[in-house]
Amino acid sequence: MPANIITITTDFGSKGPFVGIMKGVMSNINPDVRIVDLCNDIGTQNIFEASLLLSMSYKYFPPGSIHLAVVDPEVGSNRRPILVLTDDHYFIGPDNGIFTHIYRDPHETLQVLHIQADHYFLSTTGATFHGRDIFAPVAGWFSRGIDSSSLGDVITDYTSLTIKEPVKVTKTAMEGEIIYIDTFGNAMTNFTKIHLDDLYSDMPGANLKLICKGNQLNFTNHYAEAPAGIPSVLINSFGYLEMFIYKDNISKKIGLQVSDKVAIMIS
Amino acid sequence: MPANIITITTDFGSKGPFVGIMKGVMSNINPDVRIVDLCNDIGTQNIFEASLLLSMSYKYFPPGSIHLAVVDPEVGSNRRPILVLTDDHYFIGPDNGIFTHIYRDPHETLQVLHIQADHYFLSTTGATFHGRDIFAPVAGWFSRGIDSSSLGDVITDYTSLTIKEPVKVTKTAMEGEIIYIDTFGNAMTNFTKIHLDDLYSDMPGANLKLICKGNQLNFTNHYAEAPAGIPSVLINSFGYLEMFIYKDNISKKIGLQVSDKVAIMIS
Amino acid sequence: MPANIITITTDFGSKGPFVGIMKGVMSNINPDVRIVDLCNDIGTQNIFEASLLLSMSYKYFPPGSIHLAVVDPEVGSNRRPILVLTDDHYFIGPDNGIFTHIYRDPHETLQVLHIQADHYFLSTTGATFHGRDIFAPVAGWFSRGIDSSSLGDVITDYTSLTIKEPVKVTKTAMEGEIIYIDTFGNAMTNFTKIHLDDLYSDMPGANLKLICKGNQLNFTNHYAEAPAGIPSVLINSFGYLEMFIYKDNISKKIGLQVSDKVAIMIS
Repeated sequence: MPANIITITTDFGSKGPFVGIMKGVMSNINPDVRIVDLCNDIGTQNIFEASLLLSMSYKYFPPGSIHLAVVDPEVGSNRRPILVLTDDHYFIGPDNGIFTHIYRDPHETLQVLHIQADHYFLSTTGATFHGRDIFAPVAGWFSRGIDSSSLGDVITDYTSLTIKEPVKVTKTAMEGEIIYIDTFGNAMTNFTKIHLDDLYSDMPGANLKLICKGNQLNFTNHYAEAPAGIPSVLINSFGYLEMFIYKDNISKKIGLQVSDKVAIMIS
Repeated sequence: MPANIITITTDFGSKGPFVGIMKGVMSNINPDVRIVDLCNDIGTQNIFEASLLLSMSYKYFPPGSIHLAVVDPEVGSNRRPILVLTDDHYFIGPDNGIFTHIYRDPHETLQVLHIQADHYFLSTTGATFHGRDIFAPVAGWFSRGIDSSSLGDVITDYTSLTIKEPVKVTKTAMEGEIIYIDTFGNAMTNFTKIHLDDLYSDMPGANLKLICKGNQLNFTNHYAEAPAGIPSVLINSFGYLEMFIYKDNISKKIGLQVSDKVAIMIS
Repeated sequence: MPANIITITTDFGSKGPFVGIMKGVMSNINPDVRIVDLCNDIGTQNIFEASLLLSMSYKYFPPGSIHLAVVDPEVGSNRRPILVLTDDHYFIGPDNGIFTHIYRDPHETLQVLHIQADHYFLSTTGATFHGRDIFAPVAGWFSRGIDSSSLGDVITDYTSLTIKEPVKVTKTAMEGEIIYIDTFGNAMTNFTKIHLDDLYSDMPGANLKLICKGNQLNFTNHYAEAPAGIPSVLINSFGYLEMFIYKDNISKKIGLQVSDKVAIMIS
């Protein structure tokens, strides 16, 4: 059963009324629904970023939450609108890989439906705003408890993006990359504690460093523990290795971007 | 009867607490009211943009919605606070033309009141924040169902901005202009399907092009249908002709701004 | 008794899902709570700005409101999480001075608790996001009515920032500074009506000017009253003296920044 809460993730930004309009559509269908902005400043048409941030976030919402995600460059084409059903969270958006990280998470049940029930859609002209005409109304109706099976058929050929995993390049080194840079300039990598444990398993108690663009970064437990002005690394609260400079913007300071290569070495 | 929903449109941006304060005021008066941000990043003091975006948006909210709009450079002067009553939507804001497009929409009833009932206002010092002191409290009280006639007298000399309509310059050509550029850089013009039909009526089945800054743009049905990198045009989901480059920012690419001239030609 | 409303003030910006995640956590604990963004674009790690904006805002929310504030560069260190109880508003955040202006306000009761009841915290790894793991869940539980005494012990050695007050430099002049620049570029100073009255008390009916960076600014009652293009000053709706240029951005025009010196002179 869906809970009475819908989150929104888009690349619509704050300059226009587009997110507001989707809220209007959903409120019109379900006056009691609670709508929460997850993030509407996803990088323009950056489907990977939307997928990543959704995966970092959805578990913190009540079971039964519906997560609406619209980063949708192919809007109006024949790319399919989909509903993803997991154990206790629901996802609605275009079938363009925006739920890639969700598919990869462990679930007891994972079902993807091609939304075809166009009597739930808004009847409007134009093919540039399915957030308003398809995704928001379907989310609104679904939050009212309509049966998912009435929305369309199960599909198995849904789209996933390629997620680059860190690679073990020697027995003592792995190579990964930056996958997200946050408001503070902190640079999140695709390394997690699992990769550290993998390296450590061969050399328990060894010394670990992260290397990026000629910098050797030492590990700390929290931001304020790092020496002032020194690029450092910690395991952040989402389980990823994150590079930072305490009270500074490491990405501006040493010039970091998403996709930049990063290595961890044990010695 | 007003519904229990208030939308907010301002040029207050996200840097300050001003929109939040208005929500506090309204929540204090009506604890059950639902408040939705329509857009708080209207261009600074751009009354026209607020009016346009409101007109594109309000119909998607539940009947009875109250739309609060505060782009108000003359705050504190004798410009009047007004309440606009239409068939099924209500608007509250300064009488500076911010509801111009609303006035122009077809309504069975359209009534404008000069809000004078200052016992509903917040009693505060200063004359720089009527969003907090006048508009928000009046919206809060109105959402609780107070009679509109208790707020002030009907006026007929309310302010409208001039809206430039496209002009037919020859039997086969019309001239219009860009009226809005969205987050993605897509450039919306003041041409609608009505203007196309006008041109077509003389030459049914003819070929149509849009011309802007030396570029000839072909029509497509949706973004992804356009050839990569080629400026193109479609009818967007609000009924306006919109220039775009698929997966790119046409306004940055070819240098477009609001008020730039645009022509459509039939051949 | 806390009201069913929680406001949020952070420097998390809109680029990430961090504010959304905190809302998820609170909604999970108290499905009925109403959450309002006060401001999530506080300058990066600008604790003073957060404290100032909070103090300008909280009184406009319903009595019993809970105000969550997370500008927290020392997250993960041993800086304490605190709950501040005043007559009719509650504040939750790190003990780093973020409630300085609140402490200074007149209250009949003011009590600060060190939040230690970690069974209310989220059990997670990482020490970079106490907004999610400590502050949001405690706010959620507190909004459900748990007794404040169950959260931790009263402390009296809580942290305050230094607030610079205007100084009387001669019998006819005071020196202050700019403390905030808003979206419109208007520059708010730390002068209030109290300081004006102080100067006037010696010379009732005298003429008053504000001086900043070589400009002499005259007083007006509202923005539109000032001559076009001329830097002017008024008492804003929060009681502070504010410099502005009508329909222009004074801070860009004459180069103003927070901490710039300002004087008022009487003659």
